[in-house]
Amino acid sequence: MQDRFKKLIVSLKEIGLLSGIGSLLSWDQETYMPSGAIDVRSEQSALMAELVHARWTGDAFRRVLSEWVDLDSGAFLGDVSDEEKRFLSEVYRDWKKAVLLPSSFVSAFSSLTSKAQHVWQEARAASRFSLFQPYLAQVVAMSRERADYLKSTVVGGGDVTPYDVLLNEYEPGVRSSYLTPLFQELCVGIKDILKKVDVTKTVPNWEMDVDRQWEFGMWILAQMGFDFSFGRQDKSTHPFTTQFHPYDVRITTRLDARHFMDGFSSTVHEGGHALYEQGLDPAWFGTPFGEAMSLGIHESQSRMWENQIVKSRAFWEGQFQRLQMLFPHVLGEVSWLEFYHVVNRVRPSFIRVDADEVTYNLHIIIRYELEKAMVDGTLAVADLPHAWNAKYLSYLGISSENESMGVLQDVHWSCGLLGYFPTYTLGNLYAAQFYGQIERDILDVSGLISRAEFSPITSWLRKNIHQVGRRMSPSELVMKVTGESLSSEPFLNYLRGKYLVADS
Amino acid sequence: MQDRFKKLIVSLKEIGLLSGIGSLLSWDQETYMPSGAIDVRSEQSALMAELVHARWTGDAFRRVLSEWVDLDSGAFLGDVSDEEKRFLSEVYRDWKKAVLLPSSFVSAFSSLTSKAQHVWQEARAASRFSLFQPYLAQVVAMSRERADYLKSTVVGGGDVTPYDVLLNEYEPGVRSSYLTPLFQELCVGIKDILKKVDVTKTVPNWEMDVDRQWEFGMWILAQMGFDFSFGRQDKSTHPFTTQFHPYDVRITTRLDARHFMDGFSSTVHEGGHALYEQGLDPAWFGTPFGEAMSLGIHESQSRMWENQIVKSRAFWEGQFQRLQMLFPHVLGEVSWLEFYHVVNRVRPSFIRVDADEVTYNLHIIIRYELEKAMVDGTLAVADLPHAWNAKYLSYLGISSENESMGVLQDVHWSCGLLGYFPTYTLGNLYAAQFYGQIERDILDVSGLISRAEFSPITSWLRKNIHQVGRRMSPSELVMKVTGESLSSEPFLNYLRGKYLVADS
Repeated sequence: MQDRFKKLIVSLKEIGLLSGIGSLLSWDQETYMPSGAIDVRSEQSALMAELVHARWTGDAFRRVLSEWVDLDSGAFLGDVSDEEKRFLSEVYRDWKKAVLLPSSFVSAFSSLTSKAQHVWQEARAASRFSLFQPYLAQVVAMSRERADYLKSTVVGGGDVTPYDVLLNEYEPGVRSSYLTPLFQELCVGIKDILKKVDVTKTVPNWEMDVDRQWEFGMWILAQMGFDFSFGRQDKSTHPFTTQFHPYDVRITTRLDARHFMDGFSSTVHEGGHALYEQGLDPAWFGTPFGEAMSLGIHESQSRMWENQIVKSRAFWEGQFQRLQMLFPHVLGEVSWLEFYHVVNRVRPSFIRVDADEVTYNLHIIIRYELEKAMVDGTLAVADLPHAWNAKYLSYLGISSENESMGVLQDVHWSCGLLGYFPTYTLGNLYAAQFYGQIERDILDVSGLISRAEFSPITSWLRKNIHQVGRRMSPSELVMKVTGESLSSEPFLNYLRGKYLVADS
Repeated sequence: MQDRFKKLIVSLKEIGLLSGIGSLLSWDQETYMPSGAIDVRSEQSALMAELVHARWTGDAFRRVLSEWVDLDSGAFLGDVSDEEKRFLSEVYRDWKKAVLLPSSFVSAFSSLTSKAQHVWQEARAASRFSLFQPYLAQVVAMSRERADYLKSTVVGGGDVTPYDVLLNEYEPGVRSSYLTPLFQELCVGIKDILKKVDVTKTVPNWEMDVDRQWEFGMWILAQMGFDFSFGRQDKSTHPFTTQFHPYDVRITTRLDARHFMDGFSSTVHEGGHALYEQGLDPAWFGTPFGEAMSLGIHESQSRMWENQIVKSRAFWEGQFQRLQMLFPHVLGEVSWLEFYHVVNRVRPSFIRVDADEVTYNLHIIIRYELEKAMVDGTLAVADLPHAWNAKYLSYLGISSENESMGVLQDVHWSCGLLGYFPTYTLGNLYAAQFYGQIERDILDVSGLISRAEFSPITSWLRKNIHQVGRRMSPSELVMKVTGESLSSEPFLNYLRGKYLVADS
């Protein structure tokens, strides 16, 4: 198959190399670039984005693709196997996404979101939504326009709403008619758990040397199977994962002496993303078979490591001593079980990124409902702060008039990323369902985790998830791997088992 | 003028941005890239080089340039001022260099040198020139071919030898008929000094913490006027300077606990290069008026800081105490004058990069004579080791049969950089002549240096050298700045003053 599609694969690989160079520009910008270079860097990044776009939309690519696919209808030409059909239809969809958006729209949207991010920062600093409001209104309007251009690219076709088109960009095949009841069930389950959990516990304010935190983080990455010959960890203001190729995957973390778990969780979280990228098949680099399936599946990898594995009783029972030895003065008198409870403290709060795993998805469901309503036109942007506060009161039982801690806390909308938030919760649901399967497939997972012997888990993930690439859709993958379609039950059961069963 | 040439400048700026991205790929490769990414990185770098070459040689650029210059003859079209003529002739020369080399030759040469570097490393490790010999023979042959393609680009035109063409790539306008007598004079002068200097002194083997060395290096960079908003320093195996734009100039250093001056000198040396790059006019970025004039002029900036300024009596008399405070246990009992003598110890040795400033240029003159003879065809590549040893014996009075410390010590020839070595010595001569002018133009330079108050010096360099860009040739610049043409006398006088006058 690689021989047959050689010309196509060579073109895709070149686009992949160019995109990777663009990613290096971003990575460098967030890690080592001197501050004064920001304007030059923007020009370099724009130029690389233009080059990538020109490759996708150019005549050369069109010619190569049209040997296999009718460019108007997407019909396959000649005799192609099922696997080849899957390959070609994914390439065709990527190509269509590139050609359907007019360059003038792309640059107008990019210039709007660039301004909107700037204004959002000012608005957040001043805690005044009204400053950001006109920009958000434009982002919503242009997102509807974007959806109109892209509606023919939705996986499965048929009747779709504008919001479905946006969803589809991040989680192919998912519709809001599917998400709404799924999230509703989840919401009911979480609220029920929340009623039964003690949310009044306080946590100690330990001071822990950041160099030793770094050391512990590097150790866990190595245990997870992160390959430092093909990647690295650095520090940045906001942790992220970036990859140029499966052979060069870089993560960042952020360390704070007073918040050990922030840095450690983010190392493990980004490490989970990075394992996915390092596990993609390099032979298919640049093509759909060598790319991550969706944002939700990506998030399932980071969240499973962060929550199911590293925030587990087994892990801290087995490995707390290692941490204690690094911080004898701070943790010398603390037991592993106390530490485990500190790490898993549950408390409804305003800030999504600081949320525990019980309340986290309520933050996402709120954003899902609000952004969907804005795109559908049932919620005016001007009414967003009010709607935001009402939902926080109803779902999490808390309210605040502070807009910087409320409706202005996330960067996503200012970047034009409407339809992105649901992938966080999908990731949590996928993670729990996959993890249930791991417990069935691998003997004594708890024992492995307590000894930090992760390689059977990493191998399982590599084989069942990473190497699949985009050979199937997220829902097909869940069915294939777990034998059942996605539901909120595995996740809710995981929470119940962890938070509602008394310590033995 | 910028308005008039707007289209041309926009094209050049885009090429500059793309070249800068290529430089970032190299910088990252030498600093932070995980080792397993090397093959992917080579592909990315090759792709960027292709894109840059395609911009230079494409129809779009040809059209823009042909509005001002007859592409066949280089004649200016219409009414252009002298400054505009200078600008256009430099652009035309750059364009010609790009179009005169056939793509097939460029890729064959690049693949040869890539292999040659690999073999050179093995040959050096085994200390066996015979392994490298066939590759060097090919490099010499292809360099002659290269010279043949490029002979019409030599500044000044007229009769030129193949070696002159190669020289011209690095130091525009310079011929071997000019260099040979200049270097001969210099050689006589150095040998005379060498006879009178005590070359038997030994130096202590201090152990100095590398983190504190780093601190001292960062301090000197700040004093020099290196702007950390527009640049940074990192560590790498071989120190280098790379720039993507005057707003993003990065240097590296290499620290060794037992060799303080290696790291410190390299920081100051690369810092001198970096000040030049940060001092270029950003308004002319990507064009000849915003680019460094030549490798020799570049080297004059690094060497002046490294030698005339920071290895001076004044500097250590004034600043040794600062170093002493960082290393009280090691340097507590050492006087500034002892330290100054250690730093300036003279001793003929085999390794160019470790050479003191008295013997350094003899290493270069040897390489100049040998590479010129190989290109001229008067020295067979097979006879190189013998010729090398004979010259070391005659010029430096030392001999060794060890080829890895001899003929195999430098990477340059394996990279195809014939004609490059002379720019090191030109840099030293320019530096001494410029520094003489600085002593005439600025009051009490010694006092400033002893207080590490370098800003008058940096401002002088910025105004007289950095901001000139490629508005004139190196020889024109020397004449304009110092009122005299280049000679070896200022350099020899500097050495005599420093090494032959007894301590007062």
